[in-house]
Amino acid sequence: MKKKKRVVIALGGNALGNTLPEQMTAVKITARAIVDLIEDGCEVVVAHGNGPQVGMVNNAMIALTHEDAEQPNTPLSVCVAMSQAYIGYDLQNALREELLDRGITDIPVATMITQVRVEADDPAFQDPSKPIGKFVDAAQAKIMEEKFHYIMKEDSGRGYRRVVASPRPAEIIEIGTIRTMVDSGDLVIACGGGGIPVVRQGNHLKGASAVIDKDLASCLLAKELDADYLIILTAVEKVALNFGTPEEKWLDQVSVEEAEQYIGEGHFAPGSMLPKVQAAVDFAGSKPGRTALITLLEKSREAVQGKTGTTFHM
Amino acid sequence: MKKKKRVVIALGGNALGNTLPEQMTAVKITARAIVDLIEDGCEVVVAHGNGPQVGMVNNAMIALTHEDAEQPNTPLSVCVAMSQAYIGYDLQNALREELLDRGITDIPVATMITQVRVEADDPAFQDPSKPIGKFVDAAQAKIMEEKFHYIMKEDSGRGYRRVVASPRPAEIIEIGTIRTMVDSGDLVIACGGGGIPVVRQGNHLKGASAVIDKDLASCLLAKELDADYLIILTAVEKVALNFGTPEEKWLDQVSVEEAEQYIGEGHFAPGSMLPKVQAAVDFAGSKPGRTALITLLEKSREAVQGKTGTTFHM
Repeated sequence: MKKKKRVVIALGGNALGNTLPEQMTAVKITARAIVDLIEDGCEVVVAHGNGPQVGMVNNAMIALTHEDAEQPNTPLSVCVAMSQAYIGYDLQNALREELLDRGITDIPVATMITQVRVEADDPAFQDPSKPIGKFVDAAQAKIMEEKFHYIMKEDSGRGYRRVVASPRPAEIIEIGTIRTMVDSGDLVIACGGGGIPVVRQGNHLKGASAVIDKDLASCLLAKELDADYLIILTAVEKVALNFGTPEEKWLDQVSVEEAEQYIGEGHFAPGSMLPKVQAAVDFAGSKPGRTALITLLEKSREAVQGKTGTTFHM
Repeated sequence: MKKKKRVVIALGGNALGNTLPEQMTAVKITARAIVDLIEDGCEVVVAHGNGPQVGMVNNAMIALTHEDAEQPNTPLSVCVAMSQAYIGYDLQNALREELLDRGITDIPVATMITQVRVEADDPAFQDPSKPIGKFVDAAQAKIMEEKFHYIMKEDSGRGYRRVVASPRPAEIIEIGTIRTMVDSGDLVIACGGGGIPVVRQGNHLKGASAVIDKDLASCLLAKELDADYLIILTAVEKVALNFGTPEEKWLDQVSVEEAEQYIGEGHFAPGSMLPKVQAAVDFAGSKPGRTALITLLEKSREAVQGKTGTTFHM
């Protein structure tokens, strides 16, 4: 039997919808694209973002403190954990159903609560810049600063939002278990929302007020699982140079060297395409034979077949 | 090497504390008792309740609908999923830390999001009786009935609470993955809160507005994993006949036949000791060599050593 291609796919939090009804529709479309890959002989591991979802959970836990004065505030790390279950439960069911609908009965689907260690001295902690949760006015922002010790920043004239650090992922705590499950043929959902951010304090892991970029966490996951492909999903079929200008040029095949040159030339927007390209370069450059793809969810199958998407190789 | 004894331990939701700070303290005590068993050569699988926790999550999601009119209500099954992560994240870290503190470095700890299937025609759905969430007054109860289609019942003169069905667990959906993990030596946390209740609709699993008794779910888990011991934790060291009366008699060794006789004589309080004894009898009677124990958390080690607790055998 031909060895299966191992694929780590990084779904965007936005691709999962902003509300539960949206999510329940979105996961069905996602499940079809993932099971397409499985039918093509890939062994798939699913990672995903949680932007809207962790914001919602965080808002709910704050809303509870307004109604119940004895309710302590819930740390962001716990909200990330809850968002992994909120998304994973839906996503794993959609995957399970899609597999069964296609007569594939031998692939169990499972969601792993995943912690990702970050360094306490990561420079990101000195400059929290990732906005989460809802917009509030100046008065509410002041209350949240005082009551919860949140860092609130004015955001694009639309009000204030909490900002947190986005440190680099250093280690996936549950990687041994994830590897066991993937090796035994399970379809595993892991590193949700980039993982629950924790810092090491001796033998203790302490939750951090941070969110980890899900593309960077997926890259680490793909390296640790010795995957053949890392698929980073985005809203465009391919990555472009001079995006949105008359000189726009869509990229098919890119070497790590070329990609690094394009990064240096400032072609990719920070907080948007840049971290995706950085994760792709990191993975493709980590070992010969590893391929990173950036494309649309619905083009994943064709991208692995080499027909579309932007392909990063060594 | 002597074959390890496989132990499924069912922690009470109340034993995990009512708030996050309480939980963070409680899980440390729990971790010590569990790692004691591991040091004694047991292979442990952890299940747990979620009464206070799923109530809190449910309250938070309702509180969010009060602040955000566009926020749809979150089904109870999703709240159970979130409670598995809320508890599992903390519990797995406490276990990991306790293992490392004792120099045990080869046992990964992992939390599995677990669904448990119930029958759609379970009679429990005709008579929802398990209260969850907070007490509200009659006016609020009416709003919740109309807005969320909750069934609200007056509870002991203290106000109204939502009641849901407590159907019997029929199947652990993720049992294959849990077995793989346990067989490979992981310390697994599964079936949190009795599992996310789902009913089968063809290939689809639909969340149910229910909570599954965690002792019955733990019993099913122990049978499916062919465990040697099922430990059901409670607030007393042993089970008693004529509990709280002058004829009170603490039980050491009980056969399945004797236990069934005591159940018939009405010795055990429904909603309290009765489901624990029923789960113990179910497990002990399912196969020769299987032992169920009911005892205190801090007596688990001695109970497995045969020194205390109430032991149920065939």
